[in-house]
Amino acid sequence: MSSASQAKPPNAARRSARSLKAILDASMELVGEVGYNRLTIEAIAARAGVGKQTIYRWWPSKAAVLLDALTAVVDDDAYAAGIPDTGDLEADLKAVLRATVDEFTDATFEAPYRALAVASAADAELSAQFVERLQEPGLAVYDARLRAARRAGQVDPDLDLDLAVEMLLGPFQQRWLTRSGPLTYEFTDRLVEMCLRAFVPRSTP
Amino acid sequence: MSSASQAKPPNAARRSARSLKAILDASMELVGEVGYNRLTIEAIAARAGVGKQTIYRWWPSKAAVLLDALTAVVDDDAYAAGIPDTGDLEADLKAVLRATVDEFTDATFEAPYRALAVASAADAELSAQFVERLQEPGLAVYDARLRAARRAGQVDPDLDLDLAVEMLLGPFQQRWLTRSGPLTYEFTDRLVEMCLRAFVPRSTP
Repeated sequence: MSSASQAKPPNAARRSARSLKAILDASMELVGEVGYNRLTIEAIAARAGVGKQTIYRWWPSKAAVLLDALTAVVDDDAYAAGIPDTGDLEADLKAVLRATVDEFTDATFEAPYRALAVASAADAELSAQFVERLQEPGLAVYDARLRAARRAGQVDPDLDLDLAVEMLLGPFQQRWLTRSGPLTYEFTDRLVEMCLRAFVPRSTP
Repeated sequence: MSSASQAKPPNAARRSARSLKAILDASMELVGEVGYNRLTIEAIAARAGVGKQTIYRWWPSKAAVLLDALTAVVDDDAYAAGIPDTGDLEADLKAVLRATVDEFTDATFEAPYRALAVASAADAELSAQFVERLQEPGLAVYDARLRAARRAGQVDPDLDLDLAVEMLLGPFQQRWLTRSGPLTYEFTDRLVEMCLRAFVPRSTP
């Protein structure tokens, strides 16, 4: 294959990849600094060292840039592998929620995630994308782990998996969003213990 | 007592009460129409038919107006009486959460509450007031009802009441805020049933 048959010569592809990463990184930094409402494509372009037309060529809006930026971070860090299955459901759920505590107490992740969560809560269209791109992949790994536990007889055969995942994550997300209490391992450990009391097979009467 | 000994003559007091109500109502309507960011004291004053100095005399900010407006609605409608105690914890919790479904699917309440929740999520100082003024009174009625159930031996004597309340409300609040699923009686009924499986006294081994 000659380079002439390719869509882009290798140097341009490398430059594109560098620009892409610079833009995603810049959007995450800036939204943490100025908030979603004051975030602009112009500022992202300036921080990333690219022209704003480069951004508009790839994304229709700042929300789209941020969604890609957060999705990339989340995919890399947590979701790709799923929740490990050691056979001990309680230990596995505690471990993943402790990792979530680490993530949500790390300002480099927390600030852009909060900005997008806030913007989504105010905007139904953005909310649908936020849920589909960022929340549902997170829920899916819990669903898969609980499904395995159900096959192993460790949770009730009639367990409503959607509701179970909401019970594991809702109290955490709500405490985080409203800052109504500390996000600690102790909190998530107790939450897992309480949820498992609801999830375990009912003893036959 | 002569009217001269009072701080305000009766007519002025009546006018104040009328203005107060008009301002609170106007703030609720407007925030639902334009969102929190574009809400202004000027617009509230115009809608209420008062001068903006009247508002500034009573409140330091639009957030303070809205907090009073929502607190008044919430107090009147639900919190003053607490959760009824019929002796049937499951029925009582289902009833109060069904009433919460009604409230959060009513746009006249939902829109201003969402606006303030969103603004609070983005602003730690406002969040503290939002939690103290609006959320904690809501949590307190659940806490009181669960405490009565604990005295009656209907829930585990070691039940962590704070966590229990977060389990009852977090999944609801999260589903509402992200619009990730429908707010139905079926959802809240199942949530109560699941939570009670976690709350009931542990059978002795």
